[in-house]
Amino acid sequence: MGKSNSKKKKIYLDYASSSLIGSANPGVIHELGIKEKNKLENARAVIAKILNANTNEVIFTSGATESNNLAIQGIISYFWERYSHLGAKLSSEKMPHIITTNIEHSSVLETCKHLEKTKQAEVTYIKVEKNGIIDSKKISKALKSNTVLVSVMYANNEIGTIQPIEEIAKEIRHFKKINNIKNLPTGRQVFFHTDATQAVNYLPINVCKLGVDLLTFNGAKIYGPKGVGILYVKRNTPIRKIMFGGDQEFGLRPGTENVALAVSISKAFQMTENMKKKEVKRLIKLRDYFLNKIFKNTSKSAIAENLVNNKIILNGDLKNRLPNNINITFTKIPSDLLVIELSARGIMTSSKSACKSNSKNGSYVIDAIRSAEALLPPAGGSKASAEEIGSLRFSLGRDTTKADIDYTIKALSEILHKLKKWYN
Amino acid sequence: MGKSNSKKKKIYLDYASSSLIGSANPGVIHELGIKEKNKLENARAVIAKILNANTNEVIFTSGATESNNLAIQGIISYFWERYSHLGAKLSSEKMPHIITTNIEHSSVLETCKHLEKTKQAEVTYIKVEKNGIIDSKKISKALKSNTVLVSVMYANNEIGTIQPIEEIAKEIRHFKKINNIKNLPTGRQVFFHTDATQAVNYLPINVCKLGVDLLTFNGAKIYGPKGVGILYVKRNTPIRKIMFGGDQEFGLRPGTENVALAVSISKAFQMTENMKKKEVKRLIKLRDYFLNKIFKNTSKSAIAENLVNNKIILNGDLKNRLPNNINITFTKIPSDLLVIELSARGIMTSSKSACKSNSKNGSYVIDAIRSAEALLPPAGGSKASAEEIGSLRFSLGRDTTKADIDYTIKALSEILHKLKKWYN
Repeated sequence: MGKSNSKKKKIYLDYASSSLIGSANPGVIHELGIKEKNKLENARAVIAKILNANTNEVIFTSGATESNNLAIQGIISYFWERYSHLGAKLSSEKMPHIITTNIEHSSVLETCKHLEKTKQAEVTYIKVEKNGIIDSKKISKALKSNTVLVSVMYANNEIGTIQPIEEIAKEIRHFKKINNIKNLPTGRQVFFHTDATQAVNYLPINVCKLGVDLLTFNGAKIYGPKGVGILYVKRNTPIRKIMFGGDQEFGLRPGTENVALAVSISKAFQMTENMKKKEVKRLIKLRDYFLNKIFKNTSKSAIAENLVNNKIILNGDLKNRLPNNINITFTKIPSDLLVIELSARGIMTSSKSACKSNSKNGSYVIDAIRSAEALLPPAGGSKASAEEIGSLRFSLGRDTTKADIDYTIKALSEILHKLKKWYN
Repeated sequence: MGKSNSKKKKIYLDYASSSLIGSANPGVIHELGIKEKNKLENARAVIAKILNANTNEVIFTSGATESNNLAIQGIISYFWERYSHLGAKLSSEKMPHIITTNIEHSSVLETCKHLEKTKQAEVTYIKVEKNGIIDSKKISKALKSNTVLVSVMYANNEIGTIQPIEEIAKEIRHFKKINNIKNLPTGRQVFFHTDATQAVNYLPINVCKLGVDLLTFNGAKIYGPKGVGILYVKRNTPIRKIMFGGDQEFGLRPGTENVALAVSISKAFQMTENMKKKEVKRLIKLRDYFLNKIFKNTSKSAIAENLVNNKIILNGDLKNRLPNNINITFTKIPSDLLVIELSARGIMTSSKSACKSNSKNGSYVIDAIRSAEALLPPAGGSKASAEEIGSLRFSLGRDTTKADIDYTIKALSEILHKLKKWYN
């Protein structure tokens, strides 16, 4: 500063609010603060419009993990606030009940487990079907008098299966209707949350049509910035904040607003929406080309040999899956080894969920679909653990081409050939 | 992708981990993931070195608000986990006790109030002295058998007063010594947290010398990125996470790591450290020049007239204050009006704390130092509320020049002259 521009002198003496002159604190009332506040609210409006929501129903967080924590802990916290006068006398019948599934992202599962462990909630984990899809009727059957929250992901992060969110919403509406539940502060309430992080690139995201009260996604998965997430909170959904401080984000999320990230995620979200239709079509074509190369391989390649020996499994439903997801298991070959071999050939893929890759456990999602099956296709009798079989995820994106797929198929064939003597 | 570079073909098929090829998920094991992991750990090492800490004592969060919440909620959560078998039978004597002050940032104060309200902790709020400084002997006197945490900010965000962190640490050590407390998992523990967000630009930040167990700061206040904070957690300080999900950040903070922000804050922190000595000297000179212009103004300006009528108050100690902070009260003139008048002249300042500026309350910090005084200097008898008198904060920074100060003094004088007929 100190230099005047052509029009008006500007002197910034608000370094304690934000040391970056170019990104003033939107909570302050001077000219730069007001400009930032406007940018923030414009970004919020862009996101709200795409979601078919109201502007004050969109909350900025630090990411999908925080959004999921805020949704779930926030509902339970409200419940306890409402019933705090009951204190320790709260009987197990009154304990708030959450219904979720056994294939949710760790930020949903671990939050639920924490609430269970600390006796803040009772949780039912609906088991996924063998095709990786949740049966909405099973959700319906699990609803009971103390149910306050249902949390089901829109699409699974590992196997890409799409969950029947609209159907589940319908089941919940039906349950509320026959039990005369109106989500009023005075009465019983059942809210529906979905983690749409993996779905938002490819699936319809109109919250009214989906019938959800809470919806999560983030910037990193939609070609936007890392470090920012969204939680849609339908009007009259009484969640309570989980971190405490300033009154930002309608009192639900303290901390100086990050205007740059908010603007950036709004632009990324708009672009995702604009290209969704075309991109979905293109990726389905690519994905199915990839799958055909693997599962209908008639040449004398190592892939074909593996297939003949019934050693390649497509994890998750073929039809109800994300356009960009291919998740396969090569039985007897550790998936980590395949990731490393592919990486050595310049091909970046994932085994299991990245969020849990440091843990000693295998994939709980693959475990879940396997345990829903009677027996594994290959012989052996006992249920193969995910640790033994592993799973390899190829997730395609905007820059993926047919040539990339061809190169990958070729590499995969070479790797399988190389490993043949060890694992056949 | 799809285009091979000169050396090696690269195909990214991990869009579900992160849609940004340039910023892969550091939790995955392919080549790009490992590169990101290395960058993250290098950034952590840079920060640890400056703090004189171990690398695994540095946690990345989304900001100072989250760091403060994690420190305070995290310690209390650990306590309850340890004593969970006592359940509802926990007597009030055993209730974990927190000592903090009445001038902390809202993210500390509101977290403490929440823990009090939900009967998770007992909290003592030490009253600040009239010079804006906490008396370490008062902390010492408040320590008792169930104290588990002391949280005192390093420097105040509104009035810039520097708190005697080393002295408070000494009092706590003395208390622990005479009570044979060793911070072991098996016995009684007292931990010391400081919010160093406003201090880190200008004050020594060696955690061993300060004697703290937990220390908070963020990127936005050190000319670094928004959306990232640091929590230093001394080895054997048993905090528990407050959000649940993946195992990132040594199990204390779930969510995909933000490598770009981590690298960026480490660079900003290093630069801050490199220029600290010189910048402190320069800013003290500028600040004192500013103060002299206001308080030793002998010309016939409107400022001088105000001063003669005893209507300008410097809030907070003159000596023990941040080099960049000037906080003054013009009695009878609403501070918001001054901020707007200054903004109209291109000068960006703050009134009260930006984090609470939307709230209906005045500044609780100014309230706290006023209520520590016997009477306000001007007549009137009853204690003037902060709402009536307000406070105006000028916080200087790297680009502030002497010419900026001269321009500001001139503008201030004009504004006071203009408002004279209304407020004299």
